[in-house]
Amino acid sequence: MAINNTRKIYDAVGAEAVLTEQPDLRHYLTGLSTSFGYVLSDKNGSSFYTDTRYIEGATAAMQGSGIQVKLFEGSLENLLKPYKEVAIPLSRTLYPDYVKLSDMNLKITDSTAAFTKAMAVKEKYEKDYILKACEIADKAYLKLLPEIKEGMSENDVAAELEYLMRSYGASGTSFESIVAFGENSSVPHHETGSRKLKFGDIILIDFGCKFGGYCSDCTRTFLFGDDKKHGDFKDAYEKVLKAHMLAKEKITSGITGRQADEYARGYLREYGLDKYFTHSLGHGIGVNVHEFPRLSPKSDDILADNMVFSDEPGVYFEGKFGIRIEDTVTLDNGKVVSLTDSDKKLTVI
Amino acid sequence: MAINNTRKIYDAVGAEAVLTEQPDLRHYLTGLSTSFGYVLSDKNGSSFYTDTRYIEGATAAMQGSGIQVKLFEGSLENLLKPYKEVAIPLSRTLYPDYVKLSDMNLKITDSTAAFTKAMAVKEKYEKDYILKACEIADKAYLKLLPEIKEGMSENDVAAELEYLMRSYGASGTSFESIVAFGENSSVPHHETGSRKLKFGDIILIDFGCKFGGYCSDCTRTFLFGDDKKHGDFKDAYEKVLKAHMLAKEKITSGITGRQADEYARGYLREYGLDKYFTHSLGHGIGVNVHEFPRLSPKSDDILADNMVFSDEPGVYFEGKFGIRIEDTVTLDNGKVVSLTDSDKKLTVI
Repeated sequence: MAINNTRKIYDAVGAEAVLTEQPDLRHYLTGLSTSFGYVLSDKNGSSFYTDTRYIEGATAAMQGSGIQVKLFEGSLENLLKPYKEVAIPLSRTLYPDYVKLSDMNLKITDSTAAFTKAMAVKEKYEKDYILKACEIADKAYLKLLPEIKEGMSENDVAAELEYLMRSYGASGTSFESIVAFGENSSVPHHETGSRKLKFGDIILIDFGCKFGGYCSDCTRTFLFGDDKKHGDFKDAYEKVLKAHMLAKEKITSGITGRQADEYARGYLREYGLDKYFTHSLGHGIGVNVHEFPRLSPKSDDILADNMVFSDEPGVYFEGKFGIRIEDTVTLDNGKVVSLTDSDKKLTVI
Repeated sequence: MAINNTRKIYDAVGAEAVLTEQPDLRHYLTGLSTSFGYVLSDKNGSSFYTDTRYIEGATAAMQGSGIQVKLFEGSLENLLKPYKEVAIPLSRTLYPDYVKLSDMNLKITDSTAAFTKAMAVKEKYEKDYILKACEIADKAYLKLLPEIKEGMSENDVAAELEYLMRSYGASGTSFESIVAFGENSSVPHHETGSRKLKFGDIILIDFGCKFGGYCSDCTRTFLFGDDKKHGDFKDAYEKVLKAHMLAKEKITSGITGRQADEYARGYLREYGLDKYFTHSLGHGIGVNVHEFPRLSPKSDDILADNMVFSDEPGVYFEGKFGIRIEDTVTLDNGKVVSLTDSDKKLTVI
């Protein structure tokens, strides 16, 4: 499918020319991933400039999109000579690149807000890609569970899970998979390592894959055998799951990220668990695994239909254990719909 | 092993304070990978500021390094209040972050050159990590070869290769693996897809993994069965291999990236193949898979002992086939030593 979101951004920005270099933003505009290139739009249309490594692939991929593929030769000065004004995403622009454009006597406009707003609300094809990434992740997780054995390392489990996601069609992971055994689960962003699995361990897996350039994000926490020493864990698990489900039930289109976060955090507060919930409830998901909106105690971002974000409350007891339960969800006619959806009731394998 | 390269950079920069936010540069400084944090150095020492997600893991990892781990609370303004001057890597700094510091009335100095220079010349522990990443990649590639079967997709082969690298100890890939079958090999940066393998196909695989935060990078091109229609391919393969080996023989410490590139390009020119060699000979490899030095027709970068870079000549015949032969290499006492090193003579599986 030929993708072209350049007009949407051009019209929203309202500048004479719109120049985009950032790979993720270019992917949003064109559906194509390359390490180098510029998308340039003006009133006459849009062009994708890239180098010899990508020109053949890009020409084939952009067929029928209305975006012209051209070889980037010469300099940015040449490309921008016809214009007096150019919009770039200032929040994503390196200082020297800003200076370079500024030295060309161009009026510089900021395209950040146009991208943030357009990318947050997903079109159908984007939701389809994300749903597919979520389905692949769910399927891989379910296949993984019975393959987890005593003595495997965190790295072994991550390797197996990533292999399964790949073989079910993912183009790669959306971030480095987190597999944490036992006490390692108390580190929210644990670096997957060589810790070996033993009977009675808690297992926390935070994983995601990409499909069509779009991400999934999911976390499950469960027990590898029940050694009957997990009373505290089971109590906390029920609370985190309830907080997760409450957020799903109560979040509606039109509320702020702060209100969304508070549905989960407020519930955990009733049990004195909010001080162990040391991160925010969620984040937007799309071409990037972290994007607009933020669902946090400080967020004024307004949630809207067709946004995709995570619902991921967690509690962490330093040196003991941690629990996080996360789904990728979307807002559909004002209501939360889960896109990752493997079972969340406490699992003992 | 506790890593601390903060003094090396601080001394080279010579500013009152050195502030580093970029994840890859922070990994170089501390040996630790986190998505958020600041390393701040002044005459009294260095601190790593991060948030609650990482504080427990970072504190354990930084034990004995001399770097203090502190919770980032409040604002950057607070952190920088004691100083009149701060160095940041300008070439890697986003425009709004520059403006923020500039608004604090701080004199801003550029730390880019200090990082580029220090990171290009590897210490022993860095070469050990890269060598380990290369050995894992080699081992995975050799294990993969007999598992490649007719009907597998490019994605299947990539999944298998990545699984093998993971299970041999890699923390992940250093870039999205490129697996290209048949005519897809003529696209230097082909996006791995669903094309199925058939008898007589050329296979091009460009792959790398990470170990200890450092990258490997390797490409092999070979035949899946010989249908006796590959005379042109075999001729070109011998030329590319010779160009690759010539570069290895002739590159010495002290020459420019341009001279290095010309050893391979000049040889291909003798056979009229230089016009199909549409990218540069190589790039530095370390924490990032693309860093200083560049080995290209335009590069004045000076090669030196203990730099690590790729040697990757290639030729691409649009719509027909492509060949690339790449090793990760280092300069040891003025001579090139190969770090990836699986067999490069034309292979038919």
